[in-house]
Amino acid sequence: MSGVLYGVGLGPGDPELMTLRAHRLIAGAQVVAYPSLAGGESFARSIAAGAIPAGAREIVMDVPMTTERAPAQAAYDAGAAEIAGELAAGRDVVCLCEGDPFFYGSFMYIFARLSGRFEVEVVPGVTSITTCAARAGMPLAARNERLTVLPGPLPEAELRARIEGAESVAIMKVGRHLEKLRGVIGDLGLAERAVYIERASLPDEVVCPLSEAPGTAPYFSMILLMKGADPWL
Amino acid sequence: MSGVLYGVGLGPGDPELMTLRAHRLIAGAQVVAYPSLAGGESFARSIAAGAIPAGAREIVMDVPMTTERAPAQAAYDAGAAEIAGELAAGRDVVCLCEGDPFFYGSFMYIFARLSGRFEVEVVPGVTSITTCAARAGMPLAARNERLTVLPGPLPEAELRARIEGAESVAIMKVGRHLEKLRGVIGDLGLAERAVYIERASLPDEVVCPLSEAPGTAPYFSMILLMKGADPWL
Repeated sequence: MSGVLYGVGLGPGDPELMTLRAHRLIAGAQVVAYPSLAGGESFARSIAAGAIPAGAREIVMDVPMTTERAPAQAAYDAGAAEIAGELAAGRDVVCLCEGDPFFYGSFMYIFARLSGRFEVEVVPGVTSITTCAARAGMPLAARNERLTVLPGPLPEAELRARIEGAESVAIMKVGRHLEKLRGVIGDLGLAERAVYIERASLPDEVVCPLSEAPGTAPYFSMILLMKGADPWL
Repeated sequence: MSGVLYGVGLGPGDPELMTLRAHRLIAGAQVVAYPSLAGGESFARSIAAGAIPAGAREIVMDVPMTTERAPAQAAYDAGAAEIAGELAAGRDVVCLCEGDPFFYGSFMYIFARLSGRFEVEVVPGVTSITTCAARAGMPLAARNERLTVLPGPLPEAELRARIEGAESVAIMKVGRHLEKLRGVIGDLGLAERAVYIERASLPDEVVCPLSEAPGTAPYFSMILLMKGADPWL
């Protein structure tokens, strides 16, 4: 009997925003696997640290932070092979994933490699989007409102067109695209409706109007843009 | 000293998909508040039931299920007044909310009424969207993909235009709009890429191709539509 692969969403960063199910699976794990920025810390592991049992085996996938795909693919290939070895030997593997596994989550790459061969359970997690909304005190969508999620690296013209046609907008992965995004949002006359959030739910969280955002943004940063009136009143 | 109002997301339905923080706040609550379909059960309360302390006071907001706004507004007015009374007397109130409070969540209506006068903390929850994706084994968005969230009650022409311009699409509140949505998606030639999910994470969950969806859909049902290739491979 092969083991089961669990793809577990850890939420946005505060360990208390893990689900009960994520916590229970991690606390009972024989084997955990997680991505790590090559040579650096693993954000996923830091969220789960308090729950990982002392004796668990840890499979670390060193993922290089580059826009090239091949090096990251190679890291996930190697990680998937190691995970497959554990599963084939009958041991369950709990794969840790920041946020939600299927919402810009690293677990998708493992899922694509192993879901055809092994039983997989995906445990959803709290996303950064609703966490940012909670921390900013900005309801995202009510009633028949639309919500559009855009990655910050998209080209300027596409961002402009998508934001123009949208109601509520969440822009993910702001990072080094902050100046471009500030320009687009300013040109559309929406600067006053935009909030900047970085590291939501963590002790060093930042929440401020986009106009007051710092000069450099980390990868885990977001802009929320509410174009409508306040329809929830 | 006034009490603190907590708007607590409970996740999609499985009590294990509550966050540790939600569970801790509910388990320590003196006062809980929640909406209930007038004369019927409260879905929010049923998710949290195992955590609510025996002696807690319960404030029930009977919200009529109607497309008219006034009766629901009156129910939230009355609930907010009762909650305000507890807060003013120095007691914290834990307001229970299915899914996430700021993502089509009922807590928005209480937030709009009380956030100016009392300290509020919003605790994000797992949304139905990522839960449906997890249960359907369908990654929602990776890399630079866009995600569009559309409510099913939108007019047919608007749904058609929005789905045409989108990549990944999640359609919420399918309910009695199922036939209209099936028509729009079929006309766009996307029926084979659409999955229907109802009551995700609950024991009576349904996950199937849209073409095999039942004739009538409950309010808590969703269609996920993945238009792109499999970019996460």
